[in-house]
Amino acid sequence: MSHQDKTAGQTIAIDAMGGDEGAAMVVEGTAMARKRHPDVHFILHGNENILRPLIEKFPILSENVSVVHTEELVLAEDKPSQAVRRGRKSSMGMAIESVKNGDAMVAVSAGNTGALMAMSKVMLRTMPGIDRPALASILPTLRGESVMLDLGANVECGEENLIQFAVMGAAFSRTVLGLEKPKVALLNVGVEELKGNDAVKNAGQALASAPLPMEYIGFVEGNGIAEGEADVIVTDGFTGNVALKTAEGTARFITALTRQAFKTSLLTRIGYLFTRPGIRRLRRHLDPNNHNGAVFLGLNGLVVKSHGGANARGFFTAINVAVEMMRNDLSHLILEDLKNFDDQFPAEVVMEEKK
Amino acid sequence: MSHQDKTAGQTIAIDAMGGDEGAAMVVEGTAMARKRHPDVHFILHGNENILRPLIEKFPILSENVSVVHTEELVLAEDKPSQAVRRGRKSSMGMAIESVKNGDAMVAVSAGNTGALMAMSKVMLRTMPGIDRPALASILPTLRGESVMLDLGANVECGEENLIQFAVMGAAFSRTVLGLEKPKVALLNVGVEELKGNDAVKNAGQALASAPLPMEYIGFVEGNGIAEGEADVIVTDGFTGNVALKTAEGTARFITALTRQAFKTSLLTRIGYLFTRPGIRRLRRHLDPNNHNGAVFLGLNGLVVKSHGGANARGFFTAINVAVEMMRNDLSHLILEDLKNFDDQFPAEVVMEEKK
Repeated sequence: MSHQDKTAGQTIAIDAMGGDEGAAMVVEGTAMARKRHPDVHFILHGNENILRPLIEKFPILSENVSVVHTEELVLAEDKPSQAVRRGRKSSMGMAIESVKNGDAMVAVSAGNTGALMAMSKVMLRTMPGIDRPALASILPTLRGESVMLDLGANVECGEENLIQFAVMGAAFSRTVLGLEKPKVALLNVGVEELKGNDAVKNAGQALASAPLPMEYIGFVEGNGIAEGEADVIVTDGFTGNVALKTAEGTARFITALTRQAFKTSLLTRIGYLFTRPGIRRLRRHLDPNNHNGAVFLGLNGLVVKSHGGANARGFFTAINVAVEMMRNDLSHLILEDLKNFDDQFPAEVVMEEKK
Repeated sequence: MSHQDKTAGQTIAIDAMGGDEGAAMVVEGTAMARKRHPDVHFILHGNENILRPLIEKFPILSENVSVVHTEELVLAEDKPSQAVRRGRKSSMGMAIESVKNGDAMVAVSAGNTGALMAMSKVMLRTMPGIDRPALASILPTLRGESVMLDLGANVECGEENLIQFAVMGAAFSRTVLGLEKPKVALLNVGVEELKGNDAVKNAGQALASAPLPMEYIGFVEGNGIAEGEADVIVTDGFTGNVALKTAEGTARFITALTRQAFKTSLLTRIGYLFTRPGIRRLRRHLDPNNHNGAVFLGLNGLVVKSHGGANARGFFTAINVAVEMMRNDLSHLILEDLKNFDDQFPAEVVMEEKK
């Protein structure tokens, strides 16, 4: 397949200048994705003078790849408001623009999260039926992988937001984790029906009888996340962001303590040498590069945020998430599910349940 | 020192019937505490027929220990509302009653958390200047130990609540961790001043210039908890509960993966044998029995909740927390700090900052 065959349905726009490791990491990750997905077209947005020599290192990038030149950048330290005002012509802004004008189905960036979130929201606007977008991500659990949202797009969420997040998260897990009827749960301080704040309790009532391709399993507590109790864990962006970062911090804490434990004595040091293959496997399982790609759901267009510190393999993982969403037409699924839900629960019913 | 010398200032009331392991665990933990704190008097509330034979096993319990008989119990499955209505004469209710009527300074229970929280609130009522009590606990971190609150007493908290939690948490860390000027932080989704919801932002402004024996260091994110970035981490009860349980779940997750890693091959199994002493040390550091004792702060009387699954050593740890609070007169410290804070920030000022 060559440039001429590309269709919007098979194109992914890439912010080639974002991420701590910069354009070289992005181009290498894109080359890995080209190999895995030979029918997908990629648009690399960024400085052509920097990108061309990097692209030439990978013969596979000589086809199905276009470069759209821009010298402007969103920097890691830029404020979201600055990016919205001045970033339209940046590599990040142009990647989002590609999605907006239909040249691409998904944009992928490893750049400044706040800027990407703000620009995506302003440029793509929320879908019909969605009040606020959500940041969703795939997390490793004891039973495999789960989706969690919102991870910080909104710090205050009402029950309507939580319901919409549940619909979007379920559709996301169907496309990316390949689940037919994902188990969806609301994150709460207890599993009994009477626990929690009003938003969580009311959202739970509405979801319990939702006519959707998912199974609402009720509330899960914080420890249920890593247990993999649910395929989709729904929460407000404040709690979700704190929970995600607490989990990351705890994982680092335990790993640091384990390292110290190995250094206790000569004996434990010797033991460490023997256990290294196992530890390496453990590290691979937890490596964020293997679970990379947070997604903004609920906008008129799909945007994937790769971890800023991702390496080429991590960026490749984020592109894979983008490809799965594109192939399974995630936006369409979400719109359909929202329509089914709203048919059964007109907005007024949900509002009345508040009282 | 004998029964006759006891003063209220040196007495701890114990719910002898709470906890998964029951009275035997409680009595053994009390014996350990009697040895460590020879001048403290203990009142054991519970069924004398069960308690007497257990007490006789520990000669040290023949002095400075009284038993107050009751046959009533709060069960693990009792609802908080049931406990409040019918539990006054239970071992848990009588322990709280001892604090209320001045017979003891602190009550310690390993029983039903919801019931203990509800009964304590109703029987002891909130301190002057405190709108809502908070559940605080000590957590292990990379740098030592930190205090976190609220861990679930209140699911919805405004800025006044967060400010009061900060004052109480700081006083708690001064008495129990022995810090002169603890570093206090608000848990948030980012460290920049503009991040977060209104409650967190406004509480941050008020705390920044608070005339208190603490250092307000601003916001910390979820990963800062295990890093030990602050001595006292303040948050609402919904977020705090989820964060605490997420940390517990993640710790279990990583430990389970590590165990799997050790079983990868014969080599790693051999390695495991060598590393065991280190792993044992790690386990000791993380063992909840070494960090046991959540405290209800903000009531007219102190109540310590031991983990329901605690062993005798864990219950002993909870009693130690109670003794430290009693010796350092925590309630008095909190009242004093609240007064200083209110003198500088009369309620109206705090309210106005809301706008």
